[in-house]
Amino acid sequence: MDILPKSLEDLVKILNEIPGIGPKTAERIAFFIVVSKSDFIEKLLNSLSKVKSEIKVCSECGMVSDSDPCKICSSSDRDKQIICVVEKPNDVLVIEKTEEFNGVYHVLGGVISPIEGIGPRDISIDKLISRIVSNNVKELFFALDPDAEGETTLSFIVSIVRKMNINLTFTSIAKGIPMGGNIEYSDPFTLSKAIKSRSKIEY
Amino acid sequence: MDILPKSLEDLVKILNEIPGIGPKTAERIAFFIVVSKSDFIEKLLNSLSKVKSEIKVCSECGMVSDSDPCKICSSSDRDKQIICVVEKPNDVLVIEKTEEFNGVYHVLGGVISPIEGIGPRDISIDKLISRIVSNNVKELFFALDPDAEGETTLSFIVSIVRKMNINLTFTSIAKGIPMGGNIEYSDPFTLSKAIKSRSKIEY
Repeated sequence: MDILPKSLEDLVKILNEIPGIGPKTAERIAFFIVVSKSDFIEKLLNSLSKVKSEIKVCSECGMVSDSDPCKICSSSDRDKQIICVVEKPNDVLVIEKTEEFNGVYHVLGGVISPIEGIGPRDISIDKLISRIVSNNVKELFFALDPDAEGETTLSFIVSIVRKMNINLTFTSIAKGIPMGGNIEYSDPFTLSKAIKSRSKIEY
Repeated sequence: MDILPKSLEDLVKILNEIPGIGPKTAERIAFFIVVSKSDFIEKLLNSLSKVKSEIKVCSECGMVSDSDPCKICSSSDRDKQIICVVEKPNDVLVIEKTEEFNGVYHVLGGVISPIEGIGPRDISIDKLISRIVSNNVKELFFALDPDAEGETTLSFIVSIVRKMNINLTFTSIAKGIPMGGNIEYSDPFTLSKAIKSRSKIEY
């Protein structure tokens, strides 16, 4: 007997669209939402409505925020001449938590990936270039995942900026053995990078 | 800088309440909901509102449904004298998919677990007993997970029904080597169960 109510089936399908949530997990979440006491569904609905009405995307950097421009872009304490290029809003969040970076961000909204059909036009590169020009940016700091897509995106942006004859320093987040990690079990690519990028010990 | 907008932070907290969704996943889902194009948040809101208004819990068996009693409980094709006892609505769904069971269900809404503070009063045992009595039930078929909580719940219910001097057959879902499984790598508990429950081969 086909017993899953239509509206619940639809919810499962929608939840299944979220990356990382497979059909089984979507079903489990949908059932949790429906059967949980304490009016969970009411809370979730209110929260989503609030997010929908309050959250904006910063027209400057592309970060999600409750103001436009966002707190970082509108802060006078941040150095607008250093732009950290990231793939997605979550990356801004984790970098901010380190309190190690005092420039501004640029969220590309993706990385170039021919396999997934994502080209340079699909991510926020044009806006980045115009920000570089208008803010007289001195350093472009790439904090992209160290994989094929990240490296491709990095070299694409670097090549475009170079062609424009802009005097700019390009930097990239360091690749190496993670803190608490293990040299013995590091993969050879990481180890190669870590050896090539070895740094002088200062006393 | 604390840059996560309050409403987004609240959404992360609510998503984090869903079992199996940790803080990192909750953050990832919240960001996906916010940044995704194609009006995902609108779709999700509509779907949740629909679920909220349409989904009921069957007052007979405890299954989620768009009608009360649910399709199964109100069907004349189903044998009301065989009740399959399950922990949660998802279990009904997977058993229905097999098309092997033609009785009705009883969703306990949990299993007895002293560690998690869930006692017999917290799950739908009283309702089960009254259904057994009023429907003159002949078979109580337990399809509970074969773990400590499932076994405890099973024996608790069996002992209560026995005390009431109701003439009833108790059955339980078979435990054994899963189809496509491996005898060599089976754990000793499963293997013991599978040996004790060996069945005659019919030609």
